[in-house]
Order: sequence, then structure tokens, then C-alpha cells
Amino acid sequence: MTTNASSAPVRMGVAGLGRLGKRHAMNLAYRVPGAVLAAACSPLDEERAWARETLPAPRLYADYEAMLDDRELDAVWLVTPSSLHAEQIVAALRSGKHVFCEKPLSLDVAECERVLALSREYPHLQATIGFMRRFDPSYRDAYEQAAAGAIGRPFMIRSQTTDKNDPDGFFVRFAPTSGGIFLDCTVHDIDVARWFFGNARATRVYATGTIALHEGLRACGDVDNGVAVVEFEGGRLAVFYASRTMAHGCDTQSEVIGTAGALAIGHNPRANRVEIYDAGGVRNACTPTFFDRFEEAFLREAQAFVEAIAVRQAGRADTQDAGATLADALEATRIGHAMREALASGVPVTL
Amino acid sequence: MTTNASSAPVRMGVAGLGRLGKRHAMNLAYRVPGAVLAAACSPLDEERAWARETLPAPRLYADYEAMLDDRELDAVWLVTPSSLHAEQIVAALRSGKHVFCEKPLSLDVAECERVLALSREYPHLQATIGFMRRFDPSYRDAYEQAAAGAIGRPFMIRSQTTDKNDPDGFFVRFAPTSGGIFLDCTVHDIDVARWFFGNARATRVYATGTIALHEGLRACGDVDNGVAVVEFEGGRLAVFYASRTMAHGCDTQSEVIGTAGALAIGHNPRANRVEIYDAGGVRNACTPTFFDRFEEAFLREAQAFVEAIAVRQAGRADTQDAGATLADALEATRIGHAMREALASGVPVTL
Amino acid sequence: MTTNASSAPVRMGVAGLGRLGKRHAMNLAYRVPGAVLAAACSPLDEERAWARETLPAPRLYADYEAMLDDRELDAVWLVTPSSLHAEQIVAALRSGKHVFCEKPLSLDVAECERVLALSREYPHLQATIGFMRRFDPSYRDAYEQAAAGAIGRPFMIRSQTTDKNDPDGFFVRFAPTSGGIFLDCTVHDIDVARWFFGNARATRVYATGTIALHEGLRACGDVDNGVAVVEFEGGRLAVFYASRTMAHGCDTQSEVIGTAGALAIGHNPRANRVEIYDAGGVRNACTPTFFDRFEEAFLREAQAFVEAIAVRQAGRADTQDAGATLADALEATRIGHAMREALASGVPVTL
Amino acid sequence: MTTNASSAPVRMGVAGLGRLGKRHAMNLAYRVPGAVLAAACSPLDEERAWARETLPAPRLYADYEAMLDDRELDAVWLVTPSSLHAEQIVAALRSGKHVFCEKPLSLDVAECERVLALSREYPHLQATIGFMRRFDPSYRDAYEQAAAGAIGRPFMIRSQTTDKNDPDGFFVRFAPTSGGIFLDCTVHDIDVARWFFGNARATRVYATGTIALHEGLRACGDVDNGVAVVEFEGGRLAVFYASRTMAHGCDTQSEVIGTAGALAIGHNPRANRVEIYDAGGVRNACTPTFFDRFEEAFLREAQAFVEAIAVRQAGRADTQDAGATLADALEATRIGHAMREALASGVPVTL
Repeated sequence: MTTNASSAPVRMGVAGLGRLGKRHAMNLAYRVPGAVLAAACSPLDEERAWARETLPAPRLYADYEAMLDDRELDAVWLVTPSSLHAEQIVAALRSGKHVFCEKPLSLDVAECERVLALSREYPHLQATIGFMRRFDPSYRDAYEQAAAGAIGRPFMIRSQTTDKNDPDGFFVRFAPTSGGIFLDCTVHDIDVARWFFGNARATRVYATGTIALHEGLRACGDVDNGVAVVEFEGGRLAVFYASRTMAHGCDTQSEVIGTAGALAIGHNPRANRVEIYDAGGVRNACTPTFFDRFEEAFLREAQAFVEAIAVRQAGRADTQDAGATLADALEATRIGHAMREALASGVPVTL
Repeated sequence: MTTNASSAPVRMGVAGLGRLGKRHAMNLAYRVPGAVLAAACSPLDEERAWARETLPAPRLYADYEAMLDDRELDAVWLVTPSSLHAEQIVAALRSGKHVFCEKPLSLDVAECERVLALSREYPHLQATIGFMRRFDPSYRDAYEQAAAGAIGRPFMIRSQTTDKNDPDGFFVRFAPTSGGIFLDCTVHDIDVARWFFGNARATRVYATGTIALHEGLRACGDVDNGVAVVEFEGGRLAVFYASRTMAHGCDTQSEVIGTAGALAIGHNPRANRVEIYDAGGVRNACTPTFFDRFEEAFLREAQAFVEAIAVRQAGRADTQDAGATLADALEATRIGHAMREALASGVPVTL
Repeated sequence: MTTNASSAPVRMGVAGLGRLGKRHAMNLAYRVPGAVLAAACSPLDEERAWARETLPAPRLYADYEAMLDDRELDAVWLVTPSSLHAEQIVAALRSGKHVFCEKPLSLDVAECERVLALSREYPHLQATIGFMRRFDPSYRDAYEQAAAGAIGRPFMIRSQTTDKNDPDGFFVRFAPTSGGIFLDCTVHDIDVARWFFGNARATRVYATGTIALHEGLRACGDVDNGVAVVEFEGGRLAVFYASRTMAHGCDTQSEVIGTAGALAIGHNPRANRVEIYDAGGVRNACTPTFFDRFEEAFLREAQAFVEAIAVRQAGRADTQDAGATLADALEATRIGHAMREALASGVPVTL
Repeated sequence: MTTNASSAPVRMGVAGLGRLGKRHAMNLAYRVPGAVLAAACSPLDEERAWARETLPAPRLYADYEAMLDDRELDAVWLVTPSSLHAEQIVAALRSGKHVFCEKPLSLDVAECERVLALSREYPHLQATIGFMRRFDPSYRDAYEQAAAGAIGRPFMIRSQTTDKNDPDGFFVRFAPTSGGIFLDCTVHDIDVARWFFGNARATRVYATGTIALHEGLRACGDVDNGVAVVEFEGGRLAVFYASRTMAHGCDTQSEVIGTAGALAIGHNPRANRVEIYDAGGVRNACTPTFFDRFEEAFLREAQAFVEAIAVRQAGRADTQDAGATLADALEATRIGHAMREALASGVPVTL
């Protein structure tokens, strides 16, 4: 942290105060030096009531456009439904505000492209999509080791996003609008692969999947366990796995294989440093959800976003790693879409 | 072990005394109760000299047919070049001998089918192909846990055969006759998947790969890192990885994912129970080769083969698990071939 | 976190801005909801300059007494030299301020007793000693599991504080005033044992040690590797190990053994979730220092202290777990002293 | 294995066919090249019946002296009650036979000394005590790494022998004659420490313990959990732990700490390479008994003993590592006795 206490704070407004929105709001309010959480926005009364009680006196809005009109805000942080992301990002930029938005930019490739094109008119504004793994300390450490040549040339990535099974299958209700398992889950792994591969272009995508438990997904062509293979230029490969049916927890992990070694990130999704010895043997509990797994990453991405804005405001020339750009998000959607298409057709999709 | 010391021993002849052949010969000579290593066969003088010095006085043959004429032998154990397997198995059966043969049965599907058809004329003879992972104590334990329902319904397998890189690329010379990485390495993983999936039929195969280090493979259409996805009937999936370029050792491992849990076999290919704490952190050495990793499996498959013959000779009705049959080996070759075809064509192969 | 944003914040002053003091100051300034870091105190110009640049405009003092005169402060946080702790705690209480102080309370048992006796005159003031392991999420999880009966009756603790070797032996210079390895390091393990044992009384202490690398310690009767065995009432046992000479990092860990299972906390001091696969095998980096290992604990102990004060100020009756009391610290010093005596005399000390 | 098939086999007789005796008999009969199990001895009819059915036609004796009269035997292997060891070793040597005996040599120091003195009259006979950890591949690997300087100068050992709890407390019945937990269990750890410390002399011993579950031990002054600290010359330290009450299995492990690193042997007593992922997290089963943990060590110590005799018979000058000598066993008993004395007296014992 290189925050300078004397510079003007970045004034943030958060939109969306659901489970993840609350986390981000708390981080921005209490744990990000240089930031002030000056406003919060939710159409739901109870979420605004929570904000009133918990956050340090922000201005509260029921309406996103009203918050955008707040002249004192430097930036907005979007934790809203995916279908609103594209238009809300555009509105934020148009109102002169930096914008951080949870993934995905959009499930529609053309819409991603339109937002990206428009954003080029606002080069002075920071626009970041929340692929938080880039800020997880372990992913970051692995990235830096790989970048320093520790494993030679990385040529293969294996990465997975696997959630603990929800016996109620609550998520099935959202399947029709989630974009399917690859656009909902695997986009994170796609972004990891592109990041480690230096933004190499994907050339061919194959995918398949199965329904292990949640038959309700069949109606919308989705699966609860999916596999995808992506070829990237330069002979690079990626294998992805996504699951909604794990028994042990949220088991998000990645492996980067190079010509001189490999790096594994998150093998064994330990909940903490405790091991239990009992009649069942030696065991460790697992992170139950991605909230638990990526708590630190959520904080650090907020700190990085605020820092990037501070650097811009100060007119400094620091090269900031502020996370995934709109262009990165477009590529993730493009590749995720190809997976979905391959799943449906049974044949590889050439990009 | 239920060996009865009073029953007649099974008299074995081993053919092939290369590195792996020597291991099998030593096991059969000294570590398999109920077996006598009565003969050994090699066309090479130095291998027969080794046998003369090391093994307990077996009869030595330079010629396989001569050994088959040895009336005192009950069974032969083949550790010969792959291209000879099919005809040598047939010859063994025709001479009335039980036969154990290293994988593969044959790289040619039609030849596998011919041997299988012929073997049906010799139902009283044991014919086993050496997919040794079925006898590795850890694979066996996982199999039994899965069979007992510990993880619900297994619907996905991830399995890999990855060898330590040989900087000299010695293996490249054999690439043209090895059948390629999938038929040479991944057949083991295919057999594991079929075993855990209760011999479910594969329906579609996709594969791709890359050359990370050994450019010499390009001439014969092979790769040094390959990935394959196989769909099995009943919505079961398998993802395989094969590599010739690992930095850390022979890292053969598998994961079986079910609707109520998962089993991992061999995550972290520990050489033993030692951990080293030094300036690099905490580490463990890895099994350098498959010989080290599967030493116990090689022994147990020999014990099981001999036991199966003893049961037949005694006319007992025990159901013996003697390992992979010729039919299993045919399926492994069939699926491996489909991978090779998919690698070459870039499109999935329907079986 | 149950912070109520509407209640008055707790106004903190930190004394001591060395390496650890800076951490605490940053936490109190930016990461503890409900706290305001209103003042900081250091006799060193450069430390106050750091505070001026980095902290959110606190009042700065060169002198501790001057800070105590600051009427706007509710509490002070002491990260000062150990020899000053006792008198500074007393002065804080006398000036009506809650006080958090880094361990030890004092190296002198009688002085601990005097402070404890005096503190009884100020029951409305919170006084906490910084045994931060009580706030480490893993120690906390283990404590709660043990308290819930997961391992039956805990009867044995093994705990260690082992630091990465400093080849310069810088710490040797401080050995004469550190109280020796047991009072400096093992007090943390003593506190862990007492905590898990429900404040059971220690009855007999034995200790020994050796100098592995730092001969300079011999002059003051200290060792760089020490072992102690403590018997507690009720047939409970503890074995402690302290070392200054580890090659791999700060390896602080504990194990709690019960009649129905055991809990290990921190076996393998992983730096993060990354594993490296290379020619040396599979390894993970280790936490280099206790700062890295207990970063989260330092934050949570600050949050708990502030919360405890907020509860007192609000007149609420919550039972807060605010960490180790002065009485706990007295017992840690008493037991640590007995270890030192046993080390010197070679015979057990009965308490 | 450097066995020469042409040399005369070593003809062995085993005495004692209990659980461990059967294992040794099977190893000697079927898994030790160069050995012939020519005789077996047990006073129990059912044990001899087992031998008749299972072993390859050995001569069977009900009486140890009768077996010693068997002129065809080169060596005897004793798996008899501890109280008989000393006299049976002496009788074996007097009858001109090499002798391997399970630990302990004797629980009585003076008796150990008498046997050792007498054995000096038979320098041509191999006499080995079964401290099998010296032949466990992991202990051996660690020993060789330490000997090669991988961890600098080893100055501290932590070692434990902890058994899975037997809820029936069957072992309590044998407590009066077992010598107590230190002489029964910790002798193995003592031998490990002496081995790694190059036979350094112990100078001071402290011990304590507690009864966690088995109150029946109190009558004979024994404990079910014991701790001991031993100082060796040259500033070396050892800390030992023995337990009869583990919930998770037989957890025998050791750690060797040096000035430049450390080696851990057996952290996490994994039963095999399988990990189970379920609602409880990620776990591995543990070795239930020392039979399972040291199966390979039992085999290798037999191979080494037979090889040592073969070397002697061939008049070769190989320096064989045949395991612990009678002198090693004497020292283990001496140190174990001091622990027992310290446990009873509460004060350290100087040796």
C-alpha cells in the first residue's frame, strides 16, 4: 500500500447490496485506504436499511441514475444483475465516473464489443471487470513466479470452478439467464488462462458436459458438470472443468504447466490451517463458498481499483495493475460462448 | 494371500529380460508364493547371463518357441516388444499355456479382435493384460470405496500419465512405433476409467495436444503433451492428460468424482514419507519413474495371476480378480485409437 | 462484525511506531470499523514523519505522557519496549484509558502482580495483552472445535514458536533484555496451552536447551533452541519448543490432543496456496516471519479490542472475548520464568 | 539386492508364530532371496498347524532347544516373549547360530550387559536386534540425506510412537511386564535418535506422563501418554512422545532438525495414496497399526540380516548395515530405564 494520506480520497458509490454487494460495500467503507464510500444504491428497502445501519453515513439511492447524478462521486462499483452490467457501465462512463463492474461484462459478445468501443471515448476513466482471481494472493504469487521464468515457458493450464452442491438446486432457477455453466463459472478460468498466457488468442474450443444431479437444467440446455478444452495460439492448451455438484466445498483451483516446472494454485481447498485427526483419518475442512475462498481477493481488487484512480487523479504515470479490462472481459465472453456452442453442437468451434 | 503350501506350484516362464522383464522375473522367482520361475527366455546373451546369475536356476531359452515347447511350464509371462504381443499370446494359448502379457495387446484394433476371438477357444486358460494400476494398493482401495458407494454414483474421471522429461528425448526414437502418446500412455488411464465405470461403453472421443519440448515428434504426428475427453454411456465423462515433459517426476494420478464425493489417487507423487524443510520451503521428492510408483502393483499383479491359475488348477470356483482381460485391452486400444484419430483430424470421433 | 455505524467511534492512540507498531497503526486507521486512530506517539522523528504521511491526520506526540493527557482519546495501544509495558499500562489506566499492550506484561513476576492488583481498581477499563494467536482464525477454529467436544477431553498440547534463522544473529544483541527464549517466544505457546486447557494451573515445569548456531547467547545463559515440559493440574501436559534457527521460515504451530481426536494448527507453515513442482519435487514456500503468519490475527485482535470497548461504552452486557487478560499475562510470565529457572538449574521447578 | 543365486542359501529357523511371527515367517519363506525357511518353532499346536499349511515344508518344533539342535540351521529369528529374549539369544550363539531377535534385548540393563559381554566370544556370528525403523525406506532416505549433510549438523530429534487406542484396553493386562510405555514404545524412538546422532551418548533424561483413558495402568505406575526429554553429548537434544490413545491410527513419526534444515519422516500417517473428498472436507485414512506402517521395513530387515550372514559365509569383506547391534539395544534399554525412573521420581536422571 502506497496510499498517501494527504491526497484527496476517492469517493465511491456502490450499486447493488446483495450478499456480494454488502461485502464490497464493507470493504470500500472500512478497509480500503484512500477510499470513501460516499453513496450506496439499491432498489430494495431492506438493503438500504442495512446500509443506513452498517455503513458510515453514505448517501442512499433507490435508483442508479440518481446516484450517477451525484456530483461528489468519483467512481461507481456495480454488483447488480448481469443483464444490467453493459448499460450501467456505459451510463457510468457517460456521467464521467470510473467504473468497476462484477463479471460478466455481458453474456452477449456484440454487446461486449459495443461497450468496449464506447469506452475508448473515455480513456481517462478507469473501467475494470471483477475477475477477482487476479488479486488473490496465491494466484498473484504464481503469476509472478511464472512471469519470472520459474517454470520455463507455460504451455498448459488446467483450471476449475467447482461449487459445493446446493441440494435444493436453487441455482437451477437462474440457469436460463446465467448463460450456462461455462459463461457463468468457466469465464473465471478463461480469464486466468489468458492472463497467464499473456493474452494469447484462443483458436479452437471444444466442450462437453453432463447432468449429474440437477435434471432441471436439461430444459435450457445446461449441465451441472462441464468440461472444455481450448487451444491457444503458440501451441498452448487449456483444460477447464466446472461443476455445481461438489460434496466438499468450493474447490476453485488452477495449475500452470511449463517446460521447466509447474505451479498449482489451490490444490486442496483448505478452509484454514487446521487439521483434524479422528477415526476417519486426517482431514481438513474446505472453503464452503467462493466468498470464503476469495475474501482477500475481493479486498485487494478494491484497493487496486482505488489506487488506480488515485494515480490517474494525481496525474502520475505509475503503471497500475488494475485487473481485467473490458477487452479481457470481451474475450472471456467470446470463449465462453464458443464453449456453449460446442456443448450444444458436439463439434469444436474455431475462433 | 491364501496360498496353500501343499498344492503344486505354478511353473512360470518369463519372456523378455529388459528392465521391466527383470523386475517381473525377480518377483516371480522370489516374491510370489505358489509360483516357481522355471524358465526364462531372451534372444540376448547378456540377459540370459543375468538370469543365470540372479535367478534360482531356471532353464534358459534364446527362442520363445523353444520355451513354449517346455512341457513343464504352466504359464508364460511376456515382457517383449509390443509388436510381438498378439502372435506370442496366440502361440502361448495354442501350446496350452496361461499367458500374462504387458500392455498393449496390440496397437491394431483388428488384431486385438482376432486374438480375442481366438482366445475364446481356450476358456480354460487364463489370459491377462498388464494394466498394473488395477493392482496398485491405492487404486484398489479407491475402487473398493467407490464400489461400496462412498462417493455416490461416479460420473467423472480425471486421470493422467505424465512422465519425467528425458532431456535426451530418447523416447522420440520410438515414437513412430509406440502408437503415439495416447496409445502408449493414456491406455492406462482409459483402462482405469473403464474399470471404475463398470465397463461402460465409450461413445465419443476428442483429443488435442502440443509439442512443448520434443520437436522430433512432429514428423510422426505425435505430441509430447496430449489431452483427451471421452464420453461414456450413461452421461459419464473422462478427461485424460498425458505428458512426456514433467520436471518433477512420474506423476500418474487419477480422480473419481461422484454424486456424493470424490476420490483422488496419487495427488502429489511422493517418493516416500519424507519431507524436507529448507530455504526453499517444505518439499517432498517425487517418484522418478513408473517403476518406482508401481513397484507394489507389479508384484501384486503377479501374485493375482498365479493365484488365478492355482484356482483353475484346483478346480475351485473362486471368482478371482485377475486384472484386465483381452476384451478390456481391446477396448483400451479402440479408445486410444479414436484419440489418435481425433488428434490428427481435429474433430471428435464417434464410437 | 456487529459494528453499529451510528455509535460513537472508539478514539485510539498508538504508542510506538516500529515495524509492528506501524502495522497496528495501519490496522487501527484503516481496517477496524468503529475505531478512529486519533493519535500516535513516538520519540523518533522519522516515525512521526511516517505517521504524518501515512495515517489519516492523527495528532502526533513525541512523549507518551503527553498523549495520555489527550482528553479525546478513549484508549491507547502500546507497541513499546517490553521494559516500559508495566508502567505505561498503569499510567494509561490512571489516566482513565483502556489499554492494549503487546506481550509481555512484564518479565518480572512481581511487577506483573502489582499491575494486576492495580488494574482491579479500574474494572470499567479494558486491559488486554496481545497474545494474538487467540485471534488467528485457525487457532480460533480449533479452539471452538475443542470447546464443542470434537476431540473429547484435551489432555495434551504441543506447541512451538520457531523463527527463521537470522544469519547475522542480530537478535543476540537483545538477548540480555529479552528474558531469554522462553519468556520471549514460548510465552505465546504457554498462553495457547492455558487457553485450551481452560486456565488450568501449571504445577511443574522442566526445560532444557542448546545453542545450535549463536554462541553469543552463552554469555547471558540463553539458548537458541529450547524445550520445555509443563504439567498442569488434572493430568494435563504440554510440550513446548522454541527455536531461533529454522531454515525454512517462521514455523509456529500447535497440536491439541484429546481423548477422542486431535487438532493440529499450522502444520506446514504454508506461505499461501501455491505449490511448486520442479526438479526438487513438490514444495511450498513458508511464512518468513510472524508478521506474515499472524497478519490476520493482528487485525482481528484490534477489532475485538475496539468492539469490547464499544460494548462497555454502550453499557451492553455482551460477553466479549477480548483476548488475554492481565491475569493471563501474569501466568504466562510465571510459567516462562519457571522454564528459565529450570534451564539454568537442570531440575524441574514446582509451581 | 545383490544376491548371488549360486551361493548356498541361508537356512533359517523362526521361533514364535504369533501375529508378528507369522509375518516374519512369511517374509523369510517367500520374499527374501537367499534365505530358506527351514524350521519353525512354537509351543502352540495351532501355530504349528498354521505353519504346516502355509509355509513351504519347514521342520516344526514345539521346543526352542530342539530347534537349536537342528544342525542344518544357520540362524534363528526370535519373535518370542520379551522375557525370553536374553537367554534365547545366548543359547542361539552358544549353539553356533546367527540370531535376529525382536526388541527389546531385555528390560534389565544388567542382563543386556551380560548378553553383550557373552556375544563378544562369538564375533563370527551375526546378532541383530529388530529396531525395524532403520529399514523403513523413509527413515533410511532421511538418514542418508542427513548423513550427506542436507540439513547441516543435526542437533535435535523429535520422535513419537503413538498407537491407535484400543477401547478394550487389552494392552493394560500386559503393562506389568511390558516395562512401561517408555521401554515398550519409546525404545524405538531412542534408537532412531542414537542412529541419527551417530551413537552420541545420552547424558540426562527427564520424563513425565499422564493417564488419559486407561486407569488400569495406575496400579503398575505406568501411563498411557508419556513425554521424555533426553540430552545427548555435544549439545544434542531429543524430545519423545508415546501414546496408547490416538483416535486416528498408528502415528509413528520423527523429525530431525539440523543447523541448515530439517527432515520430517511420517508426518501424516497416510494409509496409502488415496484422498477422500466429502462433506467432512478432504481426508486420508491412516495406518491402523505398526504392522501396516512398517510392513516394508520388516521385509527389508530380514533381507539385510540374511545378506549379512551370506557376506560372512562367503568370507567377503563388505561392510553391511545389518541394523541395530546388541550394544545399540543395551543403550536403548539404559535410556528407557532412565525415563521410567524419571517418570517415577519426577526428577531428571543423569547417565
